[in-house]
Amino acid sequence: MSSDALDIMSTLGEQARVAAKTMRMVDTKSKNHTLELAAAILRREMAEVLAANALDMKAADESGLDAALKDRLALDADRVEAMAEGLEQVAALPDPVGAVRDLVYRPSGIQVGHMRVPLGVIGMIYESRPNVTADAAALCLKSGNAVILRGGSEAIHSNRAVAACLRRALVDAGLPQDAVQLVDSTDRALVGALLKAEAYVDVIIPRGGRSLTERVARESRVPVIKHLDGICHVYIDADADREMAMNIAMNAKTHRYGVCNAMETLLIHKDAADVAADITREMLKKGVEIRGCNRFRAVVGRLDVKVASDDDWATEYLAPVLSVRLVDSIDEAIDHITQYGSGHTESIVTQDYDAGQRFLREVDSSSVMINASTRFADGFEYGLGAEIGISTDRLHVRGPVGLEGLTTEKWIVLGHGEIRE
Amino acid sequence: MSSDALDIMSTLGEQARVAAKTMRMVDTKSKNHTLELAAAILRREMAEVLAANALDMKAADESGLDAALKDRLALDADRVEAMAEGLEQVAALPDPVGAVRDLVYRPSGIQVGHMRVPLGVIGMIYESRPNVTADAAALCLKSGNAVILRGGSEAIHSNRAVAACLRRALVDAGLPQDAVQLVDSTDRALVGALLKAEAYVDVIIPRGGRSLTERVARESRVPVIKHLDGICHVYIDADADREMAMNIAMNAKTHRYGVCNAMETLLIHKDAADVAADITREMLKKGVEIRGCNRFRAVVGRLDVKVASDDDWATEYLAPVLSVRLVDSIDEAIDHITQYGSGHTESIVTQDYDAGQRFLREVDSSSVMINASTRFADGFEYGLGAEIGISTDRLHVRGPVGLEGLTTEKWIVLGHGEIRE
Repeated sequence: MSSDALDIMSTLGEQARVAAKTMRMVDTKSKNHTLELAAAILRREMAEVLAANALDMKAADESGLDAALKDRLALDADRVEAMAEGLEQVAALPDPVGAVRDLVYRPSGIQVGHMRVPLGVIGMIYESRPNVTADAAALCLKSGNAVILRGGSEAIHSNRAVAACLRRALVDAGLPQDAVQLVDSTDRALVGALLKAEAYVDVIIPRGGRSLTERVARESRVPVIKHLDGICHVYIDADADREMAMNIAMNAKTHRYGVCNAMETLLIHKDAADVAADITREMLKKGVEIRGCNRFRAVVGRLDVKVASDDDWATEYLAPVLSVRLVDSIDEAIDHITQYGSGHTESIVTQDYDAGQRFLREVDSSSVMINASTRFADGFEYGLGAEIGISTDRLHVRGPVGLEGLTTEKWIVLGHGEIRE
Repeated sequence: MSSDALDIMSTLGEQARVAAKTMRMVDTKSKNHTLELAAAILRREMAEVLAANALDMKAADESGLDAALKDRLALDADRVEAMAEGLEQVAALPDPVGAVRDLVYRPSGIQVGHMRVPLGVIGMIYESRPNVTADAAALCLKSGNAVILRGGSEAIHSNRAVAACLRRALVDAGLPQDAVQLVDSTDRALVGALLKAEAYVDVIIPRGGRSLTERVARESRVPVIKHLDGICHVYIDADADREMAMNIAMNAKTHRYGVCNAMETLLIHKDAADVAADITREMLKKGVEIRGCNRFRAVVGRLDVKVASDDDWATEYLAPVLSVRLVDSIDEAIDHITQYGSGHTESIVTQDYDAGQRFLREVDSSSVMINASTRFADGFEYGLGAEIGISTDRLHVRGPVGLEGLTTEKWIVLGHGEIRE
């Protein structure tokens, strides 16, 4: 790694640490005011932001960026307005910082409890979408953290313009502008330097494709909050309400295809195989390709149901493709999920109390559901108000990550002169 | 690293993963029964455990192990009985696994909440004390985890005998004995292999001296729960009750010297300098060496108060030595703590409401106290029932770590057929 990259990151890191020291003590009103200012500035500077985005779009045309990526990159007045509204929504959320829970008296006379505090400095590494710049900065700011943003090089002009609005709001509010810093360079060595900046950064959050996340997880010396795959399962139990099973399966698969909480594998108890034909027909009608195990194929008896390979069970399609397997028991369903799942979201459809309780307890995913579509695994649906990402890791935070996931807790002790005997 | 070490660790890791799958679903009664069985077996096998310990003590004599380490290593009937009682105490603690909190209805109709679940596989790396083998195994077992124990090579015979009791209890209770595994080798390469076993181990907890913890933190690919230093501060504010200040300072420093929650630096507001002479006299009477800043030395005017160097502020003495500094304001006290503290435990002594609130909010340590001795920073005093270690990290868990720190939470969703619109 070039020493230049390390120098640049040290400077950003030092500045972030200084800003974080102030930010963790800023009161709720000032943080909300800053976010509202940022929304106003973003609207006022709309022309400038769109002009910057036009530069990125021109470069994207020249480099032959594919259509899907170009769509993610593109800004228009509606999208900038949505960003501004996003900032206002975060301003309206409750402040997690300083909240005290479970303050109890101990036999020694002291009161002991937990106080929620910011993590410190967050490193965000993301691709394409310029709105992540505004969203991530807003969540980090509201949770009392400083953030170092490293967006995709294809969005550098857009990100620079958006970040400038947030920094101007910080200055106007009398807060340190380095609470929001953008790595203003497309040098890829800076990603490596950020991942090694353990002295300055408390946590890294990657948002993007699997290869980005894998690289971050592999190289980072800083703790990472991430998710790799979303291979979500719906299991239709023997005692499932058939209409509910159909609705949930269709919604989990076809509501949106390219999202991490979409169902990728459907497991059906052999005694519920009567739903197989209906679901297959409806899926095919929607243009979903079905890849089934041999027993399932025998039950539905259709030539347009393909054979699932072992790879299918371990694949996140993010596309109109579904693998389906008939199982003998809930145990076989749970074993399948344990073996092939990615720890994201699984749902059982059942009217049986014991089956529901077992599934809830025994399935070890970040979200486990009874009688609901996997599509509900989402920060907004869960009531977080906003979401900075999803975690399929085990430590610190799992599932949708909102403001609370960007904080930690310290112990507080209120005494009256107590000493240890 | 030898491929042998990696092979051995893969085998232990695979076995731990299999055991963890069972352990996370074991009911509370069975876990408690297993711990009670283990206590009974430990008492029954007392002679065998003491004979094993005698082998370690003999080797310690031959290798010239120092007296403090030998004291930690030594077992007698009382210490084995204490281990057995420790197992019974963990059995009596509430089971954290399966607890559900904050289950609320969302506008969509689903109920969303959090369920506490085990982390999976814990790696413990520790030195000397054979009781850690029993304590750590008990806490991991009760929290539904599997554990891989790597004790110090000087305690290998003792650890083997203690671990055998726990494994026998698991078998007698019909649970997988590999829920508790000891790395039964003194090959140091196995520590390296454990730190790289990210496929099998969810978290590493080192317990021992600073050099061990630093090595673990530096080399580990697995997340680590650790603490490095305990440079704890007491700050006597201008508005402190003088008698309380004296009591807390004396207790925080002299109750025990070699512990991480002992005070190492005393900060005194210049308007509370009237306590300086009394505290100095009492400390010196107890045999505590005092190293003060020049202003403090001028105030007390004693030749037996030494000069504090910059290094003193950054040193965890773990000994009857205290550094003392006079400060102009609470801001200067907080700045000193921010610059030199280790994020462990700090306490303010004050009768001033605003000063107390500011200290509580602005000091960013794992425990922050008002009017209490730093010695209270302890799992038992906080009501955790038992403690597997202390964390001065920011993510996942901070301060004393009990059963809850060995678990994580998943989201649960209870629906009635809801789908995303």
